[in-house]
Amino acid sequence: MRGLYIGRFQPFHNGHKAVAEYIAEEADELIVGIGSPQISHEPLHPFTAGERILMITQSLADLKIPYYVLPVTDVYRNAIWVSHVISMVPKFDVVYSSNPQVIRLFEEAGIEVHSPPMYDRDRLSGTAIRELMKYGGNWEELIPKEAAEVIRSIGGIRRIQQISQSDE
Amino acid sequence: MRGLYIGRFQPFHNGHKAVAEYIAEEADELIVGIGSPQISHEPLHPFTAGERILMITQSLADLKIPYYVLPVTDVYRNAIWVSHVISMVPKFDVVYSSNPQVIRLFEEAGIEVHSPPMYDRDRLSGTAIRELMKYGGNWEELIPKEAAEVIRSIGGIRRIQQISQSDE
Amino acid sequence: MRGLYIGRFQPFHNGHKAVAEYIAEEADELIVGIGSPQISHEPLHPFTAGERILMITQSLADLKIPYYVLPVTDVYRNAIWVSHVISMVPKFDVVYSSNPQVIRLFEEAGIEVHSPPMYDRDRLSGTAIRELMKYGGNWEELIPKEAAEVIRSIGGIRRIQQISQSDE
Amino acid sequence: MRGLYIGRFQPFHNGHKAVAEYIAEEADELIVGIGSPQISHEPLHPFTAGERILMITQSLADLKIPYYVLPVTDVYRNAIWVSHVISMVPKFDVVYSSNPQVIRLFEEAGIEVHSPPMYDRDRLSGTAIRELMKYGGNWEELIPKEAAEVIRSIGGIRRIQQISQSDE
Amino acid sequence: MRGLYIGRFQPFHNGHKAVAEYIAEEADELIVGIGSPQISHEPLHPFTAGERILMITQSLADLKIPYYVLPVTDVYRNAIWVSHVISMVPKFDVVYSSNPQVIRLFEEAGIEVHSPPMYDRDRLSGTAIRELMKYGGNWEELIPKEAAEVIRSIGGIRRIQQISQSDE
Amino acid sequence: MRGLYIGRFQPFHNGHKAVAEYIAEEADELIVGIGSPQISHEPLHPFTAGERILMITQSLADLKIPYYVLPVTDVYRNAIWVSHVISMVPKFDVVYSSNPQVIRLFEEAGIEVHSPPMYDRDRLSGTAIRELMKYGGNWEELIPKEAAEVIRSIGGIRRIQQISQSDE
Repeated sequence: MRGLYIGRFQPFHNGHKAVAEYIAEEADELIVGIGSPQISHEPLHPFTAGERILMITQSLADLKIPYYVLPVTDVYRNAIWVSHVISMVPKFDVVYSSNPQVIRLFEEAGIEVHSPPMYDRDRLSGTAIRELMKYGGNWEELIPKEAAEVIRSIGGIRRIQQISQSDE
Repeated sequence: MRGLYIGRFQPFHNGHKAVAEYIAEEADELIVGIGSPQISHEPLHPFTAGERILMITQSLADLKIPYYVLPVTDVYRNAIWVSHVISMVPKFDVVYSSNPQVIRLFEEAGIEVHSPPMYDRDRLSGTAIRELMKYGGNWEELIPKEAAEVIRSIGGIRRIQQISQSDE
Repeated sequence: MRGLYIGRFQPFHNGHKAVAEYIAEEADELIVGIGSPQISHEPLHPFTAGERILMITQSLADLKIPYYVLPVTDVYRNAIWVSHVISMVPKFDVVYSSNPQVIRLFEEAGIEVHSPPMYDRDRLSGTAIRELMKYGGNWEELIPKEAAEVIRSIGGIRRIQQISQSDE
Repeated sequence: MRGLYIGRFQPFHNGHKAVAEYIAEEADELIVGIGSPQISHEPLHPFTAGERILMITQSLADLKIPYYVLPVTDVYRNAIWVSHVISMVPKFDVVYSSNPQVIRLFEEAGIEVHSPPMYDRDRLSGTAIRELMKYGGNWEELIPKEAAEVIRSIGGIRRIQQISQSDE
Repeated sequence: MRGLYIGRFQPFHNGHKAVAEYIAEEADELIVGIGSPQISHEPLHPFTAGERILMITQSLADLKIPYYVLPVTDVYRNAIWVSHVISMVPKFDVVYSSNPQVIRLFEEAGIEVHSPPMYDRDRLSGTAIRELMKYGGNWEELIPKEAAEVIRSIGGIRRIQQISQSDE
Repeated sequence: MRGLYIGRFQPFHNGHKAVAEYIAEEADELIVGIGSPQISHEPLHPFTAGERILMITQSLADLKIPYYVLPVTDVYRNAIWVSHVISMVPKFDVVYSSNPQVIRLFEEAGIEVHSPPMYDRDRLSGTAIRELMKYGGNWEELIPKEAAEVIRSIGGIRRIQQISQSDE
């Protein structure tokens, strides 16, 4: 059974990794789909698709099952999004998502959806971690060390701080 | 004389129907143009173009004049929107609109615009009706029974409730 | 049962009308979907969506079943085209098409496709009729008189002749 | 040395003109790049690209160095925006900008960025001037007289007032 | 009176310059609109918009009237193209074109079109000049020396030769 | 050193696999970039991105170095294509390509390009293999057995034959 797990992963953090490991208990293969891959260098979307692919691939190196890490470009039209996803990634059997809109769209298309548990949701959220990055807090303990290394290698903290400044 | 009446119709309600009947008193034919037809499955835009076309066509079955119900895809550029509309629907003589931006754009293009009266604006608004749908209120008395039947047949209330949930 | 019949209708001719009448024998309602509605003023695509909607609606005035005439904007991606069509027109049960690619796409989506008979294919083809228009031949006997009237009212023959000239 | 100065110029005002004159002290040629040229007739973006090109060209008639006034269409993807700009305007050596995101993007591409001084920022801002236009204040003293003349010739004040109305 | 002259200018050659000088005899100002500005590095479209802007601006330095050199992005829809052009350049009174489709579109919009004479059409054509560039012929005598200098400064001949190779 | 190898892979064949093995001799990691991933169900582009990702990933299972298989969506603008690629895949050091246009674009961006040898080019070409598929020839010996298995599992031969039919 091949599972699909979609997120924006700005950045990929320990909560995402825990979900991947949870899926690895019940699926034979995992597809990690990166949403909004075309957006970067914005306060809510600091990292490029290429940077996120690297973070995720390296952070999952020890996952027990084979996995694909793939961008899923936005199409901005919900009614065709499911068939877009289907065409852009290998065939999958189950979607893992907690997003009500994503759940609804796959269910209308007759595709099975599982909602994985969330881990330490208050601390392990992209929003919270980007704030720590912006203000110099301890973000490194909240994300896999391989992802942290990618962020350091591209000057990611400096980027997030600079693009978050106001120009007024 | 052929009149053009543009709206999003999320959903088509009794106020929209009253405007169509008002236009039918002075025009020979009516074009109902559906704005943002490509957007659906969002809290502010729950229904697809196809679903809205069905709602409107069936709700206007007794209109006294012939009518066309047509999608008018967004182009996201005001300066070309009027010529886009002109190319996508049959030739029209008068636009019916209360939206100041729509009025301005057609007037700059030298096209006559009439502002139809509004009917019970507080209750008969898309926003108010979608809230009733979301929280289980009495939305059915505010829209034509044919439109209500379309919404029921697609599980529309369940859709609107599901996509309006937060995933936090 | 609601049938969907898709074509470009540049212009709508007697062969198209015969197919619509054939479908009216077995379906309860007909959707006529206009492909490439956004293209016009080109030698192979002379008429706008609005002009074609008018031609078709008026030519089918005596059809025995109710019908919808609707644009179906190109999406330039076959893998999502079927779900695009589904979202943009009322729900349909059977697709009528003789185009192998269209047939394949609907069949992969599990939708029933019928191939209607073709009528006098050599003379009743868009290509042949546009050539007659361009060189002053007798095109009027090949299309419904209502469609011919629309073409005359917009100066369509002059348009097709002018845009077909070379600028060398 | 050729400098690039990018802004939206809704409208072009005395602060923009002062920056252009500042650049003229250190550069040999100036490119004025107009951002979001495709957007117009909106409260925050009232003027078309053509109208802004005219305002700027005429307001800079006495600038001491040669200049180009060019639209730079939005691409909605930061990671490719710098190469888009490079392809759409003549080769430049220095970018003049106070916008942190613009600065970051050009710096990641290895291009020199200077931040020009701002002049009377509270009064000389697009937001403040559009408010004056909307409510009948004294906007004319804040923009070059040539730009004011362009705005008058197109009925710009009436446009901004009309599109800013609510339709409720 | 302000005239608009649209072309692709791949590259800008002596025939184009002669047309500009012809227009300068009857117009007060000239807008040179660059078509397909977003296309480059292809055998039929070797130069970027920025490179063409530079070629044209410098080649027309001695023109007797003021001129604007501006990109006009393709919209791929003839029915809205005229209003797109109108919104993207300063207001114009007359269009200069020999292209039958361009003439038709502006005429349908009620805009005056003049067809300028052509100069030595066999030799002074983009196609012929690009062939000379590709095979090492004497292209330099066919284009203004300022345009030739721009092409040399960017390695344009090497580019056109390289992208024209087959990879078989 | 990380190498990037871009192709359309319609389908992935033994020549492509030989190039990947050649690169594996000199690079530490390989990115396989799939061009035109959004196109499918056309005679020249029969397979979806998802199907091609599966073919390639499984065919390279024994490659000696780690690899990424990633779609690279078309942007239809050569001048920004290189920065698009850079943003969509992990950082790379060398591009492997025999396409003169691709070589030129990366060289203008200052990126190293190697041209790998071609293997049995007459037989190992996408065009030749799609012809064999269409006419029932022996295509299976020309592509990796894992890729052949993917094609069989999706009914790929029937698809290619059906979409290649004429509808005349």
